[in-house]
Order: sequence, then structure tokens, then C-alpha cells
Amino acid sequence: MGVMATATGELTQKDLEFMTELGKQLRVDSIRSSTAAGSGHPTSSMSAADLMAVLMTRHLQYDWDNPKQAANDHLIFSKGHASPLCYALFKAAGAITDEEMLTFRKFGSRLQGHPTPAIPWVDVATGSLGQGLPIAVGVALAGKRLDKLPYHVWTLCGDSELAEGSIWEGLDKAGHYELGNFTAIFDVNRLGQRGPTEYEWHLDVYSRRVEAFGCEPIVIDGHDLGEIDSALARGRASAHPTVVIAKTKKGSGFSEIENKEDWHGKALPEDMAERAIKELGGVRHLTVSIAKPEPAEPSLPATAVVKLPAYEKGEKVATRKAYGDALVALGAITRVVATDGEVSNSTYSQEFQKAYPDRFFEMFIAEQQLVATAVGFSVRGYIPFASTFAAFFSRAYDFIRMAAVSQANIRLAGSHAGVEIGQDGPSQMALEDLAAMRAIEGSTVLYPSDGNSTAALVREMAERQGIVYMRTTRGAYPVLYDAGEAFPIGGSRVVRQSDSDQVALIGAGVTLHNCLAAAETLAKEGVNARVIDLYSVKPVDVETLRKALADTGGRFVVAEDHYPEGGLAAAVHEALALEPSPPRVAHCAVRGVPTSGTPEELMDAAGISAGHIATAARNLLNS
Amino acid sequence: MGVMATATGELTQKDLEFMTELGKQLRVDSIRSSTAAGSGHPTSSMSAADLMAVLMTRHLQYDWDNPKQAANDHLIFSKGHASPLCYALFKAAGAITDEEMLTFRKFGSRLQGHPTPAIPWVDVATGSLGQGLPIAVGVALAGKRLDKLPYHVWTLCGDSELAEGSIWEGLDKAGHYELGNFTAIFDVNRLGQRGPTEYEWHLDVYSRRVEAFGCEPIVIDGHDLGEIDSALARGRASAHPTVVIAKTKKGSGFSEIENKEDWHGKALPEDMAERAIKELGGVRHLTVSIAKPEPAEPSLPATAVVKLPAYEKGEKVATRKAYGDALVALGAITRVVATDGEVSNSTYSQEFQKAYPDRFFEMFIAEQQLVATAVGFSVRGYIPFASTFAAFFSRAYDFIRMAAVSQANIRLAGSHAGVEIGQDGPSQMALEDLAAMRAIEGSTVLYPSDGNSTAALVREMAERQGIVYMRTTRGAYPVLYDAGEAFPIGGSRVVRQSDSDQVALIGAGVTLHNCLAAAETLAKEGVNARVIDLYSVKPVDVETLRKALADTGGRFVVAEDHYPEGGLAAAVHEALALEPSPPRVAHCAVRGVPTSGTPEELMDAAGISAGHIATAARNLLNS
Repeated sequence: MGVMATATGELTQKDLEFMTELGKQLRVDSIRSSTAAGSGHPTSSMSAADLMAVLMTRHLQYDWDNPKQAANDHLIFSKGHASPLCYALFKAAGAITDEEMLTFRKFGSRLQGHPTPAIPWVDVATGSLGQGLPIAVGVALAGKRLDKLPYHVWTLCGDSELAEGSIWEGLDKAGHYELGNFTAIFDVNRLGQRGPTEYEWHLDVYSRRVEAFGCEPIVIDGHDLGEIDSALARGRASAHPTVVIAKTKKGSGFSEIENKEDWHGKALPEDMAERAIKELGGVRHLTVSIAKPEPAEPSLPATAVVKLPAYEKGEKVATRKAYGDALVALGAITRVVATDGEVSNSTYSQEFQKAYPDRFFEMFIAEQQLVATAVGFSVRGYIPFASTFAAFFSRAYDFIRMAAVSQANIRLAGSHAGVEIGQDGPSQMALEDLAAMRAIEGSTVLYPSDGNSTAALVREMAERQGIVYMRTTRGAYPVLYDAGEAFPIGGSRVVRQSDSDQVALIGAGVTLHNCLAAAETLAKEGVNARVIDLYSVKPVDVETLRKALADTGGRFVVAEDHYPEGGLAAAVHEALALEPSPPRVAHCAVRGVPTSGTPEELMDAAGISAGHIATAARNLLNS
Repeated sequence: MGVMATATGELTQKDLEFMTELGKQLRVDSIRSSTAAGSGHPTSSMSAADLMAVLMTRHLQYDWDNPKQAANDHLIFSKGHASPLCYALFKAAGAITDEEMLTFRKFGSRLQGHPTPAIPWVDVATGSLGQGLPIAVGVALAGKRLDKLPYHVWTLCGDSELAEGSIWEGLDKAGHYELGNFTAIFDVNRLGQRGPTEYEWHLDVYSRRVEAFGCEPIVIDGHDLGEIDSALARGRASAHPTVVIAKTKKGSGFSEIENKEDWHGKALPEDMAERAIKELGGVRHLTVSIAKPEPAEPSLPATAVVKLPAYEKGEKVATRKAYGDALVALGAITRVVATDGEVSNSTYSQEFQKAYPDRFFEMFIAEQQLVATAVGFSVRGYIPFASTFAAFFSRAYDFIRMAAVSQANIRLAGSHAGVEIGQDGPSQMALEDLAAMRAIEGSTVLYPSDGNSTAALVREMAERQGIVYMRTTRGAYPVLYDAGEAFPIGGSRVVRQSDSDQVALIGAGVTLHNCLAAAETLAKEGVNARVIDLYSVKPVDVETLRKALADTGGRFVVAEDHYPEGGLAAAVHEALALEPSPPRVAHCAVRGVPTSGTPEELMDAAGISAGHIATAARNLLNS
């Protein structure tokens, strides 16, 4: 049995009957898969079953055989724990079999506890609440301003996640950019994990908030198919971003648990599941022939040749400035886009904004949305670069963590790292970012020391998959390398060496300059020090480190403008952990909370200046 | 010249004249200090000068000689970059000299680029925007529900930071808890760092949002002293949380830059500063005799004896359950309070809620506010424990980073860490938390493996200063230790050893159990393995590791339910970095994004099961 209805058609009795049945099927399947798994969220799925039944039958435009079709709508389950519903929907769309659906949450199944892009019809991983909506805003922004295609972006939210500030960052930007192609559906089932939500069924609270944040609220009964249909039609048609605020019942359709507490995140035991399926009219295998969009592709101008900026050796250039210049050069690639957290004049992404205003997006001071927007752009195949102060990416750490699970390809540029920033003080100093970013799965972490290597690495970032982070420095330091030299990710540079190096000084970014000065001092004392620019903090250049280990007798000084844990030194340790004789590592890092002062004063106070590096080398040689 | 006015008095012409002069002094001093420093934010200070002049003259109740007086109001500069204004206010309060004020941003001065508690009248460090307000909400919540004292909490916000979702998490909770003792002052000066703000002077936008989030908006001209006075009086008097939304001019009072772009975060050059001071009527040294509150102390019941839970050896207990049980026991200490992000039935903080409902605070799913509330409680001298899934503390990482700068004493308990959680999948798995938390300055990171050590460590957490993080495990595992044994922070436990250990297996939390199983396997093969419970990940027990290094010939296997970077293995490397011969470390850690499955399947797939640990040990012995 299969029925196709279209969004444009009049709602007929037959449609209503079909969608009623489909809503029941989605509930039954949510129960079946979670009971088979022995865990999962059937009740949070059941509350939204009617919403999804109407959406897929009459409003969603999606070619299930071709999930990469550029004209497809997007549907993002911000309430990722409603994965049983998501997978039941996939079954009803004919995308997966009933049999596969029942592999839910089992080892080896792509139908994991929360949706991830291991499934071709899933754009992003969700399950950390409050993230799907902001990412959907990013996708919609791409639709309106980059792709310029009429696809619609739908996102299903739970009411518990509306307490997350990120939801409001997202709606604010949906309003600001007037994203008429965006519709959020709030499944207000009144019950959270451990009891009633903050506002239960006070839909007026949500409605006022949505309106105040620049979106159009549409309040409905989330189990009235006609109301849902009208609301979704209005959602697609409106020139404004819309939010359907649906009053629903958790566990809807099974009287034993409907609207009852203590049923969050619990699979029904088999006997209960049987009774529920019976009450819901039994197992069905309806298939919806979901409307396909008119195929379309964004018409992007052809990409031109990238001509990176070139700096003279010895010229003083801040790597953040080189980042901005290189980003402008990358603009020749028409899929490169940029976004910033209202500090583009500090990160230098404003250079890109000036050159390519149509491909630059201001997120104001909302770092979670900044990263979410980049992830949304990645979903649409763009090459996003997001920038803010390195310290403030910590605001979006959960988004970055989840972006890795989402297999997103995003590039983050964090400026003003470390005590080197000087007078502004510790609130503005990233001193834990290398540790945090290295720990992101599959991440790339770069920390260049001069203008030309920065430019080369920005070029590399464009091609790199996954989460790619570059740390840039506030102050201007001498250019060390010739323009045009290669700086592959995973590489390093031996900046100074001799046939009789007694110690290796390893730095990156600003501390590389301090290492070079320390090597000068040591040379005057007759000590030959190798200096390594470990610009690729992850992946790290194991071969060069291994050679230095052999050549120096295993005497390393690692200097970093970062707290001692988990940064550059940890990268060196981890790289050589299984060597027959791992290096001894003296570590110059920032200990204690810094204060204000000049960069020089603060680097000296932190023990990462040239003087301290030289002392550490001497101590190592004398011990 | 000094004038004292009181909040209760009628506003006289003399008051107005004084406050006009004071407002000019605050502007002049903001210019003088920043020009002397050569950096800083005079224009963002000038916009709020009149607001602060009226606040301190007629509304703030504060004993400047006794900042620890429990009845003092709180004033938190959420817009921390307005530090010149903050310090000018301190001068006008007679708390610092003009001379000290001019040390602003200089090395060695406590008057840093952004305020920190290095200054006795500063509660928390600000400068990462959007944090002061949420923390003020936490302080106000303590005032209303814990201290039950009539002090008022004031927080000054910039308009740019209103784009941060955390602001709305905070106002939501101010509304939810009906914090009539809370007043935020929005200094809407229309201009952000790189141009106009999102809503410029559309005060109605902010007003609607504030009202929708449950607070009382009071819209005023922020340079009309009478309007300011009425608004602040209403703020203190209202039974509701209030937000004064003040239209102001950036650079107010100096015609050359007032309300002009491109003057954000720039000190005036000396010649301009001279003209500005002249236009503002010259340098003044007014002192305000700020009203002191009636001294008062919260009346807390006496603390009783803490009787920790005790578990039988071999009994299966989840460490998250032991956390909850131990927290209940700690409740005997009347300053212990708890807060949770709507997952208290998973983290087991609900046990505390049941036992001490008046000292438990639900933050719903708003992790930034969760941590901010804990910081606010710390400001008031409480001993806060905040809990959520370990993965979701990443949502509040910037708040945790700043809490360290704030010298806050907060305890964070993150449950459901690692692949061990099983079916829920990667979105719910903390796999980078050890790296991220270790990198927080001065932090303590704990990861116990059994019920009794968990209980002992929860007890230790209560006394510990700084950011203290405990990672707990979802599943139940056998109790390893007798109840009542000591588990000092910075310690470890050698769980298994012999006189001829050939390798050390180092684990924590769930992997300790896997290490023990691996040691059993190896023993059957004639290999003696030492097993170390490295429950104190930071600080780490260097002595025990050093002894293992000597005894095993430097053969270590470190197993952790965490990504490979920056976690337990890095802690071991860093601890032994300067040993004459550092250990060789085989590392069993989670590589690649995990999926769903049983805990056993996932630990095996990740390579951290007993079998993999034994294999790693064998390989180490054979290489």
C-alpha cells in the first residue's frame, strides 16, 4: 500500500486517512525498533509521529535515491534522540527495509542511537541537544545566499532543548538573515528526561520568544493533521523563518504511557510493546512516495587560480594578517566562504569580506552559531572558514566535537592565542586550545610562525577534510621562509641544524621565534641547538622528531604559549612514545594564570621567552 | 569634595549636579587610564559612565573596606572590556588611588585589561562576553534561596554580547526562579567592535526579548540621570528580575568620537585625550561615600558529620551512583549545594535533590548556565557540585576556562564517559574531556574506577580549590577497594604487583577493570604485570609512576576510554618527561569515531578491552 500526495494539492479525506495510518505506523515502528534494541526513545518519537507523517507525505521534497541532489529539502532531527522516529521515517520513505530498521542500536548497524551521517539521508550528527537547529540555520543561509535554490530546511526540535542558548542564537540569525526557507518544528510534549519541562505546555511562552527573536510562530495541536498540514504549508510559503510550535503528547497513541512521567528514554518491555502495537492497530508497511524536487544545481562562477600572498623574508607580519590575506587569495575558489564572530577586524577575515562580500557572513558575538553556520555550509559542500579569537572557540567546543561526528569539513582560525596577546589579559588568551582541538577526532591542528608558511597552510586547509584548526598570533614577527615554499600538513621545518646538535628546541607559532633566539644564545656558548618548527601540531611529523631524537641524544626542549597539558609537548611525547629510547623533554609552557603586560613581559614571566628556553637547554645538557 | 547620597532619598538638584560631575569624572578617568596604557576601551566605558555614576551614588550598597561583608550588593561587569570604567568607579569609591588607576594594563598591576578577582571588589573574571550576566544570575539565586539576604545583584552588559545564547540562558533562569534581587543593565551604545551591532538602537527588540524570557524590561535614555535613577530604584524594588535597557552613546561626552565607528577598543592618542578631558571639564577627584548595607550573615544550620556510603568489595556499583550517594552524604556540610542540567536521574544528583531539595537547583538543558550558576554559588562561598553528562560539559568549556581565571571553586561531575556508555552512540560519549579539563589552569581531574574510591574522592572534592572535575562511568563494575580507605587527590593505587613486574598496565575508571583482566591473562602466560589505578589524572602521582618505571624497565601500557590525545597517556608522559630514561608507552585509546553497540563490543572495537591491553603488553615485551 502506497500513496503519494503532494504539497500543493488540497488535503483530501483520503490523505487524512493515509496520514493517520502513517502516524500510527511511525509510532509502532519506533516502539518495535527500540524494544528490539532494548533501549532508545520511543515516547519522544511518538509525540512527533504525526508531525513527521504530514511533513513527509505532503511537504518534504526529497529524492531518496539521490540524497546528494542539490535541490533536495533538508530535514534535521535536532532532537536526535527521536532516532526511532527518524529511522521509521526512512522505512516509510522506502529508503531502508523493515529488517534493517530492527538493527537499531546494534553493533555494526548504521542506525545508531542518535542519527549520524553514516546514513546517507542524514546531514549531521545530532544528540547533543540544541545543535540541529543552529546547523539548519546554516544550511538555510547557504540555500538563500549561496546556492540560491528553493529547497526548504526543516528541523525537528524537542521542547527540553529550547533551554539551550544556542537555539536562540540560531533563531536570532534566522531572523536576521530573513530565512524564509527555514522552518523549525517544536515538538512540545511537556516532559523532559526527569520530569516536566520548564514551560510544559505554555506554548505562549515559546511563541513570544520565537516572535521576539525575529521568527514567525505558528502554534498548533501537533496531533491534528489538518493543523499540521496548514502550518507546514505556511512554513514553506512564508517569506519569514517560521517555527511551528506543536502541542504534543509524549508516548502519544499508547494509553498506558501517553503523557506520563518516567517514560523518557526507555524502550517498552516486550509485553507492553505488544499491547501498544495492538492499541495502535498493528504493524503496517506503508510507503510514501515522497515528492521529488525539480533537479537543480547552484550556478557558481568558475574557480580562478589561487595566488597566495608573498612576504619578504625578515618583514614583520602577523600570522593573523597572513591568514586574512591568504583567505582573500583562496576566494578565487568560488566554494570558499567565510564567517566570523564580530571580530573580523582582529582576525583579518574582514579582508575576505571586503573582497567577497557575498560570501562573508557576520554571526556577531555568537560563537556556537558561528561554528554551526560553518557546519551548515559544509553540509552544502562549501569550504567554510570560521574565525574568532582562539579563546572564544572554546564557547563552541561541543559544536566542534559534534562536527567531527558529523564528518563536517570546517576550518577554524583562532587568532590572539596565548600570553603573547599582552595587555588584554587572560580572558582573551587561548591557553588550552591546542589540547582541546587536538583531542577532537580526526582533527588537524596548525600553528604557523610566519606569514608565508601561514599562507601556504591556509591553502592546505581548503583541501583538508574534517575539523581543521589554525592558531594565529596577534603580534607581527619576522618572515622566516621564502614565499612559495611548501608547508604540507603533517610536515615540519628544521630551521636550524648542524652536524653536531646537542639539543633540539621545538616550537611553533611565536615560540619558534623564541627558540631561534635561544639557539643564537646557545651557539655563542658553543652549544649547537637544532630548531624545529612544528607547525603541524596534529598530525605531527614523526620522522623529523625521530631524527632529532637520534641526532641529539634525545634532548628536547619544547616551548609553547599554552598551558603545560596536552599541547605541543604532549604531541611530541605521543609521537615518540614507542621509540626504543624516548626523548627527555624539558617543557617551557605557561604555568599559572597570566596577567596583563607587554607580550615580552608576559612571555618572560611565563617562562617561554628565549632566555628561559636557553636555560632549559643548558639544564638538560648538564643533567 | 565628596558627597553622599542615599538610595532612599528624593533625587535633589544637588544630587543631579554631583552625578553629572561624577559621570564626567568616570569618562575622564577612563580616558586617562587607557591613554596611559596605550590600549583599552575608553569609548565602551564612556557610554556607561552615567549609568554607573547613578548606580554608585544612589543605589549600590557596598562596604568597600570589607568586600567580604555578606550583605554587600554585587556588581559584575559582564562587559569586562569596560574595565577603565570599572577602575574609575573604584577610584571614585575611594578604593584605589588615582595613581594606581593609572597603572592600568601594566605588568604587575592588579588592574588588568579585563577585571579579575586579583582585585578584592571583583567577584569574577569577565572579558569573555556573555558570562557576567549568567554568573550574576547564579549569585542572585544564592542570595534568594541560600543566603536569604537582601543584597542586590547588578550586572552591566554591552549590547554586542546580547547575541550570545548564554545571555538568554541566564535571563531565562532569572525569570524561572523569579529573582527579584537581580538587575541587568544593558548599555546599548549601538556600536560593536567592527561596526554597528545587530539591532543598533532598536531597544524594542531587546525589550520584547527580555519580557519573553520572563524578566521586566525598563527602557530608558542611558544619559538621563533621572531616568536612570528611577529605573535602578525600580530594579531594586521589583519582585521580578529586571533589565534596564539603556540607550547610550559610545564615546559619550567627547564630540570627536561620540557615536562614531572605528573607535572600539582604542585608547585615545595623547592629544585627543587632552581635548577630550578639556571638553569633559577637566580632571576631577570626586569621592562617593557609597551606602553600606546593614551587616548580615546567612544563617546556615550547623554542619553535621559526613558519613560516606560504603560498598561491599565485589558488589557491582556504577561510579555515577556512588557519586550521587556520596553527594547525599556530603549534604551534611550545609554549604554543599548541587545543580544539574536536567539529567539528574542519570548523573544521580537526584539523590541529593531528594535529600536536600532546598539546596538543589535544576538548570534544565542549559549547560552554560549550569556552570555559571556553580560559579555564582562559589562567589557566595558555597561548595557547588554541578553535574551533567561528561560530553555536555564541553558546551560550557569557555565558562570553565573563565572560572579558572575567576579563581572559582567549583566541582563538576561528568557521567556517561567514553565508549563504555554503549548504545547511545558517539554524541553522548565524552572522549576528549580528560584533555580539555586537564588543560584548564589549576584544575583537578579525577576518574575513579569503583564505588568506594569514588565516594572518598567526592569527599576530597568538597575541600579542593579551583576547578575540580570528576569523570564517572555509566555501567556498574565490581567494587575493588574496602570502604573507608583513603584516596587522596594526587595519589594512585597499585592494585596488583609482584617483585618481578615486567610491565605496568595503567588505567583509570573503566579501563582499570580491563587492565586487571589483562593482568590475569598475562599472569597465566607467566608475565607479571603491575596494575596502577591512576584515579587522579591531574595532579598525577609521579612517585608511583617513577617507581613503576624503575621496576618494569620502563614498559608501560596506558589504557583509556578517551581519544588518544592529551588524556591519561599524556599525563603519564608529562609526569616522567625529565626522567633519565622516560618510559616506552603503548597506548590503548579510542581511535576513530565510535558507533553504537554494547559496552563490551565498543571497548573491544576501540582497542581498549582486556584483550587489547594484554596484546599491547606482549608486543612491548617482545619489541
